[in-house]
Amino acid sequence: MSDSISRRKLLTGAAATAGAALATTARADDPAITEVQPWNQELGDGVDVAPYGVPSEFEADVVRRNVPWLTADATSSINFTPIHALEGIITPNGLCFERHHSGVALVDPAEHRLMINGLVDTPLVFTVDEIKRFPRENRIYFLECAANGGMEWRGAQLNGCQFTHGMIHCVQYTGVPLKHILAEAGVKTAGKWILPEGADASGMTRSIPLEKALEDCMVAFAMNGEALRPEQGYPLRLVVPGWEGNMWVKWLRRIEVGDMPWHHREETSKYTDLMSNGKARRFTWEMDVKSVITNPSPQAPITHESGHTVLSGLAWSGRGTIKRVDVSLDGGTNWTTARLDGPSHPKALHRFYHEFNWDGGPLLLQSRAIDSEGHVQPTKDALRAVRGTESIYHNNSIQTWHVREGGEVENVEVG
Amino acid sequence: MSDSISRRKLLTGAAATAGAALATTARADDPAITEVQPWNQELGDGVDVAPYGVPSEFEADVVRRNVPWLTADATSSINFTPIHALEGIITPNGLCFERHHSGVALVDPAEHRLMINGLVDTPLVFTVDEIKRFPRENRIYFLECAANGGMEWRGAQLNGCQFTHGMIHCVQYTGVPLKHILAEAGVKTAGKWILPEGADASGMTRSIPLEKALEDCMVAFAMNGEALRPEQGYPLRLVVPGWEGNMWVKWLRRIEVGDMPWHHREETSKYTDLMSNGKARRFTWEMDVKSVITNPSPQAPITHESGHTVLSGLAWSGRGTIKRVDVSLDGGTNWTTARLDGPSHPKALHRFYHEFNWDGGPLLLQSRAIDSEGHVQPTKDALRAVRGTESIYHNNSIQTWHVREGGEVENVEVG
Repeated sequence: MSDSISRRKLLTGAAATAGAALATTARADDPAITEVQPWNQELGDGVDVAPYGVPSEFEADVVRRNVPWLTADATSSINFTPIHALEGIITPNGLCFERHHSGVALVDPAEHRLMINGLVDTPLVFTVDEIKRFPRENRIYFLECAANGGMEWRGAQLNGCQFTHGMIHCVQYTGVPLKHILAEAGVKTAGKWILPEGADASGMTRSIPLEKALEDCMVAFAMNGEALRPEQGYPLRLVVPGWEGNMWVKWLRRIEVGDMPWHHREETSKYTDLMSNGKARRFTWEMDVKSVITNPSPQAPITHESGHTVLSGLAWSGRGTIKRVDVSLDGGTNWTTARLDGPSHPKALHRFYHEFNWDGGPLLLQSRAIDSEGHVQPTKDALRAVRGTESIYHNNSIQTWHVREGGEVENVEVG
Repeated sequence: MSDSISRRKLLTGAAATAGAALATTARADDPAITEVQPWNQELGDGVDVAPYGVPSEFEADVVRRNVPWLTADATSSINFTPIHALEGIITPNGLCFERHHSGVALVDPAEHRLMINGLVDTPLVFTVDEIKRFPRENRIYFLECAANGGMEWRGAQLNGCQFTHGMIHCVQYTGVPLKHILAEAGVKTAGKWILPEGADASGMTRSIPLEKALEDCMVAFAMNGEALRPEQGYPLRLVVPGWEGNMWVKWLRRIEVGDMPWHHREETSKYTDLMSNGKARRFTWEMDVKSVITNPSPQAPITHESGHTVLSGLAWSGRGTIKRVDVSLDGGTNWTTARLDGPSHPKALHRFYHEFNWDGGPLLLQSRAIDSEGHVQPTKDALRAVRGTESIYHNNSIQTWHVREGGEVENVEVG
């Protein structure tokens, strides 16, 4: 295990010749090594200080952020996930993006009910405790807002993947398969659609085909092991794996069964895709294959001069797992297969890496994901050729980051 | 999908005859349904209220807890994970148990270094940013303190699985395989052991065979997507998959390579297993196959009168995955195979369920896990026959919960 062998192994897939060493050899004059640090001299805080722990004060910049001009007011706005500062595939609950239509409802679970009505044999009303007496499941899923990337249809605009791609998170949900609850009420033969309704002031409703409801929808009560957070629908939310986030109704209080879709506001004037010919596509529920490089990115520039560099990103598809991610350092001329690492769950985030030896010069970074059904993430131009530029929703095009000499990064377009 | 068919499906594996309905049929007089709730009438908080989100105020009881008499003072004590209140396999970072020997070191990452020295070709010193330039991996692992269950060797004592089994958590770690870092320094042929050292006031050290270091140890900098929490070793901790938690050195500042173990305090007077003959077993690193029922349990009694009941629990093994979990409702006379649900990752928590139809009478609940290597979790008596009752560490015996008529639960022993 000589030094030369180990370094060669490390640099598999990258040009090793220009590689700066990853570490300085031990120096007698580095006070961080030679001096006893304060935390080595004194007792730290005891265990009773934080019954519910919080991040280090040195991580105060890793927070959700709003774009003030984007929506009318804070109760109808978006706090984006800081994906540029995160690792792996699990999003911590405190950093999961939030988007509300009437602010965060603070629901008392003892006063909350879930009603099943409409085309059922027996209309039913459940308390939250009663929901927890059904068999439950645990599934890791991404949740993406249909408008994620919506500000980029006409050109590069927001300088940071937190804002261009941060309407996404991925957690482990625990809940009851909706099929069990619908079976308890007994869906009549004429029942073909469901309408989940939220208990907040916006009274969110969406039409969902019964087939999807029975396939993999869940009534979730926990995320990442603990109760849902208030901004994620505490105490109950609908989970609609792989489909647009707006359908994952929060503060879920009612599911009506019907024989046709309801054509409510949030699936007509909103959450439809306006095409260049003035017509609109409706019921575009599935989230298409997509990826983004999270490091380097405008909020996470390269801070070393050259040498070993880790490129990292996220990929996902509402249709299954991610089969492959390609990465380009030159704006799409040359492509290399990225390394996928960590768990691969259907309709969940996937983490990819590309380790390369940076020469310190400019780069045009792109990633392109391919899902388990063979769908390939399109270029911006290819997507616009079909969809125009008047849309808000379902922008799954390839993102380009321009790394400047010196390591700063900006949002640009290259085809 | 008639009501009778659906209910029969739901109750597969349990006696359905005495089953109370899971929901009341809709009643005209339930104000939670008939009245408009306050959260439906007013706008909630906006998105800028919580840049880093927190749990609902209705979940204020879901916190880490200390046992005041257990250790000398709070800086050398334990805050237990509330596993009785959690779901799935991912532990939220704010609820991961903490155990310190000199309190929580609050380390400035800019002033932190990791030194590799001893039997290496080139002693090296890394900054935290330099560590992040190595290829990184993402792995879901449990971390269990060797003393988890240590208070129960002589008999049932602590009334709650938070205290009997709560020195465990399971998160997704992101970090650099230790083999890459050791290769950069170049381990000399004589090097057979490593000694990781922490930067806190306790200066924790443990001897680890080089074979394990190269197999799957990681230098982690993130957990569940975000930076390590201070109480979990921010900014760097060693991950030693499947092995006792004390070896997962926090605030990792140095790894020395040597030709034999160091026999330091924490692997001689502590973290050895005292046997009934007065001799002690040392270097018992692997965490044996184990499980516990988390619901019902003393802190999570049954709150309904009878009928559909969900039994839930956790199982794990430091030697691989969990192949099977058996559950007994009568103190070990009759056993049923539990339903494992959710991801199965090596050296990670596994979630199991058993849905049954409770008649409202007393129960003696037990779970017994079998791992992928075929190891079977022993009874308390079987473990004591080999290990005696003088030990503190590595108690992986079967736990019994006594459910009383009415649903209250207590910690008892049945063989």
